[in-house]
Amino acid sequence: MEKVLIDGKWINSQSTGEFSAANPNTREPSSEGYPMSSWADCDAALEAAANAFLELRSLGSESIALFLETFATKIEEVSTELVDMAHFETGLPKSPRLADVELPRTTNQLRLAADAARNGSWALPTIDTQLNIRSVYAPLGPVVIFGPNNFPFAFGSVSGGDFAAAIAAGNPVIGKANSSHPGTTRILAEQAIKAAELSNVPSAIVQLIYRTSHSDGERMVSDPRVGAIGYTGSRTAGLKLKTAADAVGKPIYLELSSVNPVIILPGANEERMESLVEDYVTSSLMGAGQFCTNPGIVLIPESETGRSFIAAVQEKFDASPGGTLLSAAVEKSLLQSIAFLESNGATRLTTNSKTDDSRFCCPNALLTTTGENFINNPEAMQTEAFGNASLFVTYQSIDQLVEIIDAMEGNLTGCIYSHTGDLDDSSYRRIAPHLAQKVGRLLNDKMPTGVAVSSAMNHGGPYPATGHPGHTAVGIPGTIRRFAMLQCYDNVRQGRLPRLLGDGCPSENTWRLVDGRWTNGDVQPSV
Amino acid sequence: MEKVLIDGKWINSQSTGEFSAANPNTREPSSEGYPMSSWADCDAALEAAANAFLELRSLGSESIALFLETFATKIEEVSTELVDMAHFETGLPKSPRLADVELPRTTNQLRLAADAARNGSWALPTIDTQLNIRSVYAPLGPVVIFGPNNFPFAFGSVSGGDFAAAIAAGNPVIGKANSSHPGTTRILAEQAIKAAELSNVPSAIVQLIYRTSHSDGERMVSDPRVGAIGYTGSRTAGLKLKTAADAVGKPIYLELSSVNPVIILPGANEERMESLVEDYVTSSLMGAGQFCTNPGIVLIPESETGRSFIAAVQEKFDASPGGTLLSAAVEKSLLQSIAFLESNGATRLTTNSKTDDSRFCCPNALLTTTGENFINNPEAMQTEAFGNASLFVTYQSIDQLVEIIDAMEGNLTGCIYSHTGDLDDSSYRRIAPHLAQKVGRLLNDKMPTGVAVSSAMNHGGPYPATGHPGHTAVGIPGTIRRFAMLQCYDNVRQGRLPRLLGDGCPSENTWRLVDGRWTNGDVQPSV
Repeated sequence: MEKVLIDGKWINSQSTGEFSAANPNTREPSSEGYPMSSWADCDAALEAAANAFLELRSLGSESIALFLETFATKIEEVSTELVDMAHFETGLPKSPRLADVELPRTTNQLRLAADAARNGSWALPTIDTQLNIRSVYAPLGPVVIFGPNNFPFAFGSVSGGDFAAAIAAGNPVIGKANSSHPGTTRILAEQAIKAAELSNVPSAIVQLIYRTSHSDGERMVSDPRVGAIGYTGSRTAGLKLKTAADAVGKPIYLELSSVNPVIILPGANEERMESLVEDYVTSSLMGAGQFCTNPGIVLIPESETGRSFIAAVQEKFDASPGGTLLSAAVEKSLLQSIAFLESNGATRLTTNSKTDDSRFCCPNALLTTTGENFINNPEAMQTEAFGNASLFVTYQSIDQLVEIIDAMEGNLTGCIYSHTGDLDDSSYRRIAPHLAQKVGRLLNDKMPTGVAVSSAMNHGGPYPATGHPGHTAVGIPGTIRRFAMLQCYDNVRQGRLPRLLGDGCPSENTWRLVDGRWTNGDVQPSV
Repeated sequence: MEKVLIDGKWINSQSTGEFSAANPNTREPSSEGYPMSSWADCDAALEAAANAFLELRSLGSESIALFLETFATKIEEVSTELVDMAHFETGLPKSPRLADVELPRTTNQLRLAADAARNGSWALPTIDTQLNIRSVYAPLGPVVIFGPNNFPFAFGSVSGGDFAAAIAAGNPVIGKANSSHPGTTRILAEQAIKAAELSNVPSAIVQLIYRTSHSDGERMVSDPRVGAIGYTGSRTAGLKLKTAADAVGKPIYLELSSVNPVIILPGANEERMESLVEDYVTSSLMGAGQFCTNPGIVLIPESETGRSFIAAVQEKFDASPGGTLLSAAVEKSLLQSIAFLESNGATRLTTNSKTDDSRFCCPNALLTTTGENFINNPEAMQTEAFGNASLFVTYQSIDQLVEIIDAMEGNLTGCIYSHTGDLDDSSYRRIAPHLAQKVGRLLNDKMPTGVAVSSAMNHGGPYPATGHPGHTAVGIPGTIRRFAMLQCYDNVRQGRLPRLLGDGCPSENTWRLVDGRWTNGDVQPSV
């Protein structure tokens, strides 16, 4: 059985069981066995993390930046091994997906996080020179990260966006691997701990366990030694952790589920149906639809051209085999969701039902329903069918479209396709304010898959897409502030202030809000 | 019975009961009766707020700024009436407290919020010109505000810091008056609705109910029409609302309780004991200790000078009568808390037990305990005794002091008094990192009462002082972001962007993060 990483050492787990991942392309289980940790493992990791946290506080951000950069390099050194393992465990294509897209994105995120840790602008250092009151975001304690199944590197619990953000803020991380790719997570943790040694940070800056009981997971996120929690995964499991964390006031950042509505306005549909169909099919089937921003629901006019759009999508869905799914659990859940939608009045249009028992998969599924059915049954119609399934909802009027949008839950994204001229402008003005309140990111004439690592990105949105509408899981600097607390220094002597709050500005890349104006210069000491 | 303010009109409540406030200086109930609202009132207010929200979205920030400024003026027009009523209902002195401190603070907050609404810098507009991705904080829906008993104007549900922040962000507010000063809240709401009419904002921008059942309160904060909740008050009631809001993913910002530890280091104690005693007694008895930042716990060396410090405080506490308390509930709770501390090993040193049945009050109470007892019984020893009571904890060593700090819950503030030279420097370096993780604001050589309205203020702190360590309830711009959601615009056409995200910068006071640099200038359009 593989070992867990606790307090800088790979040790035997005090386990209560064992599990294996499976190869999605063969349905065969891996020969590697991974431990289900007992509370003793969790407790040891929490204790080591609490000690590492205090050490990290005294080390400062340059060491943290160096660790992140070294880790990026160490990942690149084993990129072939990582890509092979991730391909084996997830079935995702080696190239371009894993090797050329996700791995570079991951190391890029780590390096951007290093820059952010170094310049500190993410922490919104704020100085009131007249009153000598100064505040800054600062690390808040060990962060427990639960990674999702669909991005083994870029959202991985010991390598991804949450990890990079939590570390850049100055917190140690306890990673809980996703059960579908423990081997990938192990290799990443091996490189992380090597990077920790090379950069002289506390070795418990990164720890790894693979799996716990549900009750130990809930106990862990509510432990007094924890500062905050990052979670990306299923809504059911996430909400249990949320309840446990909320009850003791621990900040928990969740990314739960999203159907990412795409709205096709009549003018756009008439103007360029074929290219929109092409865009849509590419985006919705990419990675077998296993993206948090997969466009799962399309709102389309009830019209001749609307019907043509749906027919064209159906043809393309039927013409290609379903992509490989990440796990048996994803396959099962997808089939259940499709059946549930059908039982609630959605009609399945795709005719391809050829199954393929040699791998985890499901034929591409296109369902349709009316706006009226959606409005009467909004909860069921918004069931996330994670994978290669789409629901088209036909609307009869812009008024009905507004009603449909108002009946929607919170989502990560919402797209509006409109006429390139002004034919859809009045409809756009009518619906956009409603959609903007329901989504974290509003797109024009563009599919939502592809979440750029940009300072202006919001990979977030209203509940239940996430747990709080004010935070993003992608995009430095904002994402780092999730794993921080606001600390204010009132009348504190100059030599005792944190580096970012002294009169001298640490670097020209450090931006501070001084007396209401942003500046990268020094503060004039008040005499 | 007085009327409630719903959808711009003072109407009869669909009430389930009636209550009155009392005059703390006489224990006499007021002759004014106020309604306990049924769910029908709440529902009507929520419906009106939801409609007002969409209207506000289309109005823009200039109208909102004008409303806030007009409201400040309308408050000043009735300042005598307001001060008289607030004095009658709270027992707080008319001057300087209500007329010269709290009322000007309140109108100042409203005007600062107007400035912030106008320039929009609070919303952290962020632009990535290369990718044409832009994000900004934006209003998130009706905000329900529960105001506390101790600041009838400055934290009032329809006039205070939460109100100003929620409105500045662009949200309508439903105020739930504090039951101990409904008349003050009524007058404020009367002025607010006049201001709304004068500034052409939707009249449901501000609504007022006085009281609901606990279950209707919980139902209201979890209603789909609500965007967020602000609450300042008792921990018990606040946590019930938190549970209800958390369960449906509504952001709730709470200010619950805080004992605000003050640490006297040995060097400071030896150097300037008398002046510290003076500072402490003034701060701790001000307003009968009824401040959220009242310094309720003092950590003092177990030494001859430490004992002298305690004796001097005792003498001053015994020499003055207890101030008037806000309500019968505060009086009862204070007496219970003191008894609870005594039953858990604290010793009451003050000898004055003279009660005064003509008003709500309690003799000033000074209790003491050892560091050892504190460490063995931290939860009981941190019981907040809201009012004019203090607990002194003696520490035997800096090691023990660290242990005491580590055993503390989250607090709004923590103060360290140290030698003006360097005699306490090594002790300071030892304890400050521990204290910083427990408090929202760390002070040097200064008492925590007096929360300046500063851009750098943090009136917040780790749970259970508040519900989330990343937010402040005082201090523009930060406090406004609590009542906002992050909205991202990806590839959105220029003319469709919110005012703050277009290429042109709306004003020289509008700061935006453009490609990683803060600027108040225009964006160069990418060609």
